[in-house]
Amino acid sequence: MNAQARLNARYGNDTLPAPAAWTPVIDHLLGHRSVRHYLPDAVSNEQLAAIVAAAQSAATSSNLQTWSVIAVRDAGTRAALAECAGGQAHVREAPLQLVWLADLARLAHIADRAGRPREGLEYLEMFVLAAIDAALAAQNALAAAESLGLAGCYIGGLRNQPERVAELLGLPPRVFAVFGMTLGSEDPARPAAVKPRLPQEVVLHQERYRPVAEQQPGIDAYDAAMAAFYAAQGMNVHGTWGVHSVKRVADGQALTGRDRLAEALHALGFGLR
Amino acid sequence: MNAQARLNARYGNDTLPAPAAWTPVIDHLLGHRSVRHYLPDAVSNEQLAAIVAAAQSAATSSNLQTWSVIAVRDAGTRAALAECAGGQAHVREAPLQLVWLADLARLAHIADRAGRPREGLEYLEMFVLAAIDAALAAQNALAAAESLGLAGCYIGGLRNQPERVAELLGLPPRVFAVFGMTLGSEDPARPAAVKPRLPQEVVLHQERYRPVAEQQPGIDAYDAAMAAFYAAQGMNVHGTWGVHSVKRVADGQALTGRDRLAEALHALGFGLR
Repeated sequence: MNAQARLNARYGNDTLPAPAAWTPVIDHLLGHRSVRHYLPDAVSNEQLAAIVAAAQSAATSSNLQTWSVIAVRDAGTRAALAECAGGQAHVREAPLQLVWLADLARLAHIADRAGRPREGLEYLEMFVLAAIDAALAAQNALAAAESLGLAGCYIGGLRNQPERVAELLGLPPRVFAVFGMTLGSEDPARPAAVKPRLPQEVVLHQERYRPVAEQQPGIDAYDAAMAAFYAAQGMNVHGTWGVHSVKRVADGQALTGRDRLAEALHALGFGLR
Repeated sequence: MNAQARLNARYGNDTLPAPAAWTPVIDHLLGHRSVRHYLPDAVSNEQLAAIVAAAQSAATSSNLQTWSVIAVRDAGTRAALAECAGGQAHVREAPLQLVWLADLARLAHIADRAGRPREGLEYLEMFVLAAIDAALAAQNALAAAESLGLAGCYIGGLRNQPERVAELLGLPPRVFAVFGMTLGSEDPARPAAVKPRLPQEVVLHQERYRPVAEQQPGIDAYDAAMAAFYAAQGMNVHGTWGVHSVKRVADGQALTGRDRLAEALHALGFGLR
C-alpha cells in the first residue's frame, strides 16, 4: 500500500492532499490495526526479548522505570484474564498476553532497603507517572511486535476487575495492571481493518486550544466517515460515532466496573493523595 | 550501528547474547535518545502532519480519541512553558513544543449537544483512560519524528503547574496537559547518549510477578552499569541509580509541585470520583 492509500485509510477520506513527509517507520505506524482473531502459533522467546527491549527504549520519567510487564502464556490464566475483561474471546485465544504494570513496588523496595523515606509514592502524581511510563513502553512494544509480523490489541478491560487481576498475577502492593495486550499471529481468515480517526484539524491545535464548538464541522465529517466504515464492515452500530461514544460515558454503570477504579487502587496500595 | 551494538548500549552491557529477532523498526526504537540541545531550525508543517497522523494511528480506548495535541511555536509561550516546567532551557529553545492533552471536553460537548448524560466523565477511570490515550499517541509521534531526523524529549515538568499551563494554552474544563514534548533538530555539538535501562529480567516477569527481593541482583547490576554510564558522560551523580531515584519520591516536596496534582485536576474540571 502506498503512502497516499495508508493516509486515506487512516482518515476514511480519499480527498486528502499527498503526504509530503514520509518514512518507512511512519508507514509502519500508519498501518496499525487492533487485531482480535488469532492463530494458535506461539510468540517465541526471541521475539519477546526484542519486543521488551523496544519497550525499555521508550522514555521513562526521570529514568525511574516505574513499570513492569508480565508475559502470560498459561491457558488457564489467559482464560481467567479474559473473564476479568468482560469475556473477550481473543484474550483467551491469543497465545500471549502481555500485562503492563504501573510498578511503584520496585522503588518502595529500594527505598526500604536503603532506609530512606518514600512518602512521595503516596501521591496521585506517582500513580499517573507510572501509568504513563507503562503506556509509552507498551506502545513501543506493539510497534516492535507488528514489525515482526505479529498483531495485537490493547485490553483496557483488565481495569474492570483490578483486584482479581492482581490476585491472578501475584501483584504486590503498589503494582497495578494498567492494561493487557494480546499478541499473536493474525488469523488471515478474519482480518482486521484500519479504523479511521478524527480529521487532523480536530485533534491538532495551533498555539492554543481551539474551542470544542469549532471542532464540530470536523466531528460531523468524521461521523459520516465512520458511518461509511461501519457499513463497509457490515457492523451494526446504532447512531453516529459521537452518540455511540457518549453512551460509553453516560454514567458510572456504563464504565463496566471501572467506576470503582479509585477504590480498587486504594485497596492495591496506592495513596492517590 | 549494528543490532548487537544497539542492544549493548541500551543495557549498558557488552556481554549480551546476539539478538535473534530484529527489524528496522526495532532498530529504530532501540536508538531513542532524549535530546535536550537543539538547533533553531523549524519543524515544517508537512513534518508535523506526518507526526500527528502517526499519533492518531495509535490505539485509543473504544475509539473514543480522548486526546488532543497543541503545537506551540510561539517563542513567548515556549518561554512561559519552560518556566512552568522548572526553567528547563530546552523547552524554551526547541523550535516546537507539542503539548499532549487528556481531553474529555470533546466528549462532554458531543453529549451536551445531543442532550445525553455524561456523568461517567466524572470518574478517575476517564482521566486515566484519556492520559493513556495521550501517551500512546505521543509515543507514536516521537518515533515518527525521530524517523524524520528530528529529536525530542518528554516534558513531564508541565505537571508542576497545571493551572498555569491551562491558562497559557486556553484549555477548557476537562482538558489537562499530561506532558509536553520538545521537537527539533539536535545540536550536533552536544549530542545525547543512549541511556542504559534495567536488565530485562528485572522488568519482564513470566506468568506471575517476580517478588521485588528477587529483582535485587538485577538492580545491583544496573547500579553498576549506571555508575559506568555517569562516569563516561562526566555526570556528577551522588550515589547509585537506586538512591538517586528514591530521592525523587522522598516526600511530597520532592515532587516539585506535583504533590498538588489531585487538587489541580479538580480545579480543571476533572471529577476523579
